[in-house]
Amino acid sequence: MADSRPIGVFDSGVGGLTVVAALRKAMPAEPILYLGDTARVPYGSKSPRTVERYAASCHRFLVDRGVKAVVIACNTASANALPALQQRSAVPVVGAVEPGAQSAVAGTTSQHIGVIGTLATIRSGAYRAAIHALAPDAVVSELACPLLVPLAEEGWTHGDIADAVAEKYLSRLFADDERIDTLVLGCTHYPLLTDVLRTVACSITGRTINVVDSATAMAHAVGILLADAQVDSGSRGELHCFVTDASRLDELAPLFLGEALDGYELVDL
Amino acid sequence: MADSRPIGVFDSGVGGLTVVAALRKAMPAEPILYLGDTARVPYGSKSPRTVERYAASCHRFLVDRGVKAVVIACNTASANALPALQQRSAVPVVGAVEPGAQSAVAGTTSQHIGVIGTLATIRSGAYRAAIHALAPDAVVSELACPLLVPLAEEGWTHGDIADAVAEKYLSRLFADDERIDTLVLGCTHYPLLTDVLRTVACSITGRTINVVDSATAMAHAVGILLADAQVDSGSRGELHCFVTDASRLDELAPLFLGEALDGYELVDL
Repeated sequence: MADSRPIGVFDSGVGGLTVVAALRKAMPAEPILYLGDTARVPYGSKSPRTVERYAASCHRFLVDRGVKAVVIACNTASANALPALQQRSAVPVVGAVEPGAQSAVAGTTSQHIGVIGTLATIRSGAYRAAIHALAPDAVVSELACPLLVPLAEEGWTHGDIADAVAEKYLSRLFADDERIDTLVLGCTHYPLLTDVLRTVACSITGRTINVVDSATAMAHAVGILLADAQVDSGSRGELHCFVTDASRLDELAPLFLGEALDGYELVDL
Repeated sequence: MADSRPIGVFDSGVGGLTVVAALRKAMPAEPILYLGDTARVPYGSKSPRTVERYAASCHRFLVDRGVKAVVIACNTASANALPALQQRSAVPVVGAVEPGAQSAVAGTTSQHIGVIGTLATIRSGAYRAAIHALAPDAVVSELACPLLVPLAEEGWTHGDIADAVAEKYLSRLFADDERIDTLVLGCTHYPLLTDVLRTVACSITGRTINVVDSATAMAHAVGILLADAQVDSGSRGELHCFVTDASRLDELAPLFLGEALDGYELVDL
């Protein structure tokens, strides 16, 4: 039966808006509450203890506002805090890692998978574990790419510098395992760099590389979870956006959401 | 009369350790308490309201531990929170902006000064105001360079990518005013990039550019402030380091301090 409560989505900042865009494409009528913890962004360079503490406060904020499910639109928070949040949550919690791992396993033919993400995501080993749970024989190579988030936020998603940075990181990844045929973008900022990553991966390997975008994979997982509960009106669901800091929001949000933000509310956590 | 209480130094992260290094060089016997707010780093992309709130909690932490002065080893926090902190502080507070502005005004002959820093530092207009207070006719060009901090933290301080990023930013700055002869590094991370910035500035302009490092300028200002209160023992003062998140600390701290960190304490703010 349709459940008119909103879906709650949180991220350390604005990157999770790529997940909101994918959700709205898949389930246009669903109302969404988005929380970007922009005052404490990024999570990706911080310790598991800090990330778990921050994720718990984001989760609590959304649950207090009556959401029917919480989507952790942040790979770092998913990788470090999903089990803890799932354990104590009164509503279902969907993370970024499992859906991405599923898409990667479904997409690879060589069984050699590469994963790129923030330092905290890679250090957690969460993708490796999730992929191995589905495909125990898969060979997983992981690499932290700390410069990709600031590069995306600076808007330098094409051109010489983006090419050089992608080349520097990906050549390390493919040197580690030249048989990789599937690359997981394990960070919600990275879809902005899909073109450059795909092109550089192709030029390094001389092959076409299957790129898995975890935002699309997450929207798919949420669709399955909420199959019976989905709002099925003809109109477009409302997006209500909360942030803990509004600096650069008007400039950055459209890059990730694909359209201008229709207002936001500033909150303290 | 010598005052054996420590000097308190805080920064949003580890960049302020360049200021600690400069202080220890200038005043080796002084004990120092350093606080890096690494759980909330960076401040540079955040709003004045958030930066002021975070800076106030750092200041309080150090004053509660009995320091004789507080040094804001973070240009973003200095630019946005110094007046508020000075007003209510029981001990003297030294920021990064005034000392850097003084060095720039002393060093320029053309009276054309360039300032680079984080988005929040540049947006505050604090350097422009501080330079004009000393030299009303100086022409000041400012540019935010968001990619330089992650570049320094990634350790990519030399090579093609560092050159290309420096070239992209500095060519904008010198296009704005080709008569600039003095470049202020308005961020405590930037001293790691001094070589590449100096070389690229020279290759763009065909001239030698005077580079002002605010860490050295701040140590000089603290020396003047504490002239009579300085500890004058023959031994080296102790450095006690507090951080709000320890991720990558062992790896990053030596880059900025110039030596390994002799332990640290993890605290919540």
